[in-house]
Amino acid sequence: MALADIRSGVRNEKGIAGVLPLLAARFGERFQTGEAIRSQHAHTTTYIPAQLPDGVVFVGSAEDVQAVVALCADHAVPVIPFGTGSSLEGQVNAPNGGISIDFSNMKRVLEVNAEDLDCTVEPGITREELNTYLRDTGLFFPIDPGANASIGGMASTRASGTNAVRYGTMKDNVLAVTAVTATGEEIRTAHRARKSSAGYDLTRLFVGAEGTLGVLTSVTLRLQGIPAVIAGGICGFPTLKDACNAVIMTIQLGIPVARIELLNALQVQACNAYSGLTLPEQPTLFVEFHGNEESVRLQSEEFGTIAAECGGGAFVWSADAAERGKLWKARHNVYWSCKALRPGYAALSTDVCVPISRLADCVAETERDIEEHGLLAPIVGHAGDGNFHTCVVFDDKDPAEVAKVEAFVGRLNARALAMDGTCTGEHGIGQGKQAFLPKELGGSLTLMRQIKQALDPHNIMNPGKIFSTP
Amino acid sequence: MALADIRSGVRNEKGIAGVLPLLAARFGERFQTGEAIRSQHAHTTTYIPAQLPDGVVFVGSAEDVQAVVALCADHAVPVIPFGTGSSLEGQVNAPNGGISIDFSNMKRVLEVNAEDLDCTVEPGITREELNTYLRDTGLFFPIDPGANASIGGMASTRASGTNAVRYGTMKDNVLAVTAVTATGEEIRTAHRARKSSAGYDLTRLFVGAEGTLGVLTSVTLRLQGIPAVIAGGICGFPTLKDACNAVIMTIQLGIPVARIELLNALQVQACNAYSGLTLPEQPTLFVEFHGNEESVRLQSEEFGTIAAECGGGAFVWSADAAERGKLWKARHNVYWSCKALRPGYAALSTDVCVPISRLADCVAETERDIEEHGLLAPIVGHAGDGNFHTCVVFDDKDPAEVAKVEAFVGRLNARALAMDGTCTGEHGIGQGKQAFLPKELGGSLTLMRQIKQALDPHNIMNPGKIFSTP
Repeated sequence: MALADIRSGVRNEKGIAGVLPLLAARFGERFQTGEAIRSQHAHTTTYIPAQLPDGVVFVGSAEDVQAVVALCADHAVPVIPFGTGSSLEGQVNAPNGGISIDFSNMKRVLEVNAEDLDCTVEPGITREELNTYLRDTGLFFPIDPGANASIGGMASTRASGTNAVRYGTMKDNVLAVTAVTATGEEIRTAHRARKSSAGYDLTRLFVGAEGTLGVLTSVTLRLQGIPAVIAGGICGFPTLKDACNAVIMTIQLGIPVARIELLNALQVQACNAYSGLTLPEQPTLFVEFHGNEESVRLQSEEFGTIAAECGGGAFVWSADAAERGKLWKARHNVYWSCKALRPGYAALSTDVCVPISRLADCVAETERDIEEHGLLAPIVGHAGDGNFHTCVVFDDKDPAEVAKVEAFVGRLNARALAMDGTCTGEHGIGQGKQAFLPKELGGSLTLMRQIKQALDPHNIMNPGKIFSTP
Repeated sequence: MALADIRSGVRNEKGIAGVLPLLAARFGERFQTGEAIRSQHAHTTTYIPAQLPDGVVFVGSAEDVQAVVALCADHAVPVIPFGTGSSLEGQVNAPNGGISIDFSNMKRVLEVNAEDLDCTVEPGITREELNTYLRDTGLFFPIDPGANASIGGMASTRASGTNAVRYGTMKDNVLAVTAVTATGEEIRTAHRARKSSAGYDLTRLFVGAEGTLGVLTSVTLRLQGIPAVIAGGICGFPTLKDACNAVIMTIQLGIPVARIELLNALQVQACNAYSGLTLPEQPTLFVEFHGNEESVRLQSEEFGTIAAECGGGAFVWSADAAERGKLWKARHNVYWSCKALRPGYAALSTDVCVPISRLADCVAETERDIEEHGLLAPIVGHAGDGNFHTCVVFDDKDPAEVAKVEAFVGRLNARALAMDGTCTGEHGIGQGKQAFLPKELGGSLTLMRQIKQALDPHNIMNPGKIFSTP
């Protein structure tokens, strides 16, 4: 098979046929080719059709990863890292076939340096597992994308979520990674110092690379002290724009809010139905503050004043963990609450992010767009970052409906770009957003392709993601 | 001239001879080849001997930069960006000759988006000029490396400095850049959204690339609200280790200190002499808090308790701007205060950074090393980041003394690496630290070279920095 063909994304049948028996010999029961398992590894919470890998290796160590990559590199066969499959843009699909590397048996905490507020973990551990492990140390890992995603997956999509407004994204919270590159070699991008100017920032290059430059084998993370007091609450607003304005003022005044999530009326309705809440069905902010008794009180008073100025209702707040837990669980389940609005249909989560000053306009125009075109699409957002999602629930078997949804997504992303924003705040490009990347970054895409070609000349590292052909 | 020769760093005499008249024709008076000006553009605050460029273009726009790069690319002639020349590792030297691109006429503030807490500037503006410009907006740009460096230079070395403990480094505060790449094309790495997962993080790739991948033409920065109250103070300690322990506890307890700088007794002595202070000559912390009346009071009380627990003397603090200004001016002048200890001698500033838990050990061992080997080297550090500098003042004409200094630097960097740290927290690799990069990052260096070769195949973008040959 010619290199050009491999590059252009054709299945390398001969290579795949060659590598399967070698993987079976090397990994035994830990290598699986049954269709159910392969299906499961292409299945994601996404509208994108599944593309199955040819086999799945359940790796247990960095050496295993090196062995898989080395064998696949010898045969020019793709490798596709798999954490929990919660990515939203087809990142675990295998468009050219190849081998899925499953990290569910590679989730050790390799070290916790409590005094340095950092830890090093294997990529397969999920954020909830990590936080359970850390509980006794008084520390926690703050990034929370909603799904109980794996740390490796979160690093690879540059995930963020509800806490990013205070603690930053994966870009800010990964100190270093080790990764197996396309040659099968394992490299380390940095050590544990809080900062370094030692050459190119390879850590940040791997964070968000979606596995297209290498397979992560460990991730070193910054941790935070568990706040003495966590308090939160909700506040309803007459209009979406009023709610956005409250968010904008909160951010502009520098109130160190830990979470500030926006739900439109339809999203509140969906949450009420799915999670058994009884919230008034109006634009609503879910807010959380972290600190001590005094600072949390101060923050919530300041926020209450802002909310009132923006026409908000009473700010109902609570430091009770159980009550808070119920609200945030409902927030985490919005994707499922949306799907439940029209059971059996597909759901597509959009992900634009705009400068905070444009948030109110962008959300309001988008809600109007949804109404005008008769779409079913609740809105929820990490409003403090200027990032919001619409969850479009639609019949993916009906070409007319699909076309309508695609047109909507095109208008939404164009709207965000026109406001100096991005088509993806935290989900990544994967397969689903490739059409928008050149519109957003133009000539920069040439550099990305040059880097991809330099580091992975045979295009075996999660091919078909970010760019369909490098 | 063969490509291999250009790559290996030989002067391309024919190319240089070819490009000089073209630059003269294009830029007239704005192109200078006099020796005084060329010398000035290779002169840096460094121990590294000057290597002069063949000419200097005073660019006024991104189009000018594109024109210089396009002409130089046609002739395979190096381009070396020049901000203020305050880099410390020979970053503005021209080892293969070539054209220095001087940004002193390219320092416009292109836009300030006060409501989004960001601004976009041309690379030549210095941090002090930017903060003067911003004053009326109530915003400021916090990164402060001491020198009044240009923003382009600060981005290119991934600079940080005294405020990084609270506000992060350039990596955290650059939202996007535009850059002219080796083909003469101008690219934009991102837009103004606070976060994005749109492909590889090219912003972070250019930040810290030392001009080796492209020439910056604009930088979009995050800004901060000017704190309502800024208060600071000093505290002396019986031993360096006690002072370090106070820093470690402050960071571990999450006190949001804005600055926490460590000076050893010799450094205090040097500051007293150079800046007319009368501080007790003992290990001392300079501390600053940002917030409102209440939060600053709380922070300083908490710090006072920690300092006392660590054996510190009275914590003398002040919210008086003039008094604070005098202290911080002395802090900013430590480089010159060290040079003044032995006028006419060379000074070399080291830059290790270690995990905070190792700071006390690393500083104490280093001070002992300095004493044992009879070196003159005050210690000052951004202790809250685990980053400290020794300023070695030595006779660079005496081979024995040079050898002694080189051996010390080797031991110091090895000590930091053994503690999971880095040889450079904020100065970059440049020419001076190249020997340590492979020791620190091993196989990662291969990836850096691959990226360099992919993006700059003729090695014309600031060649000889980070790696001597790519």
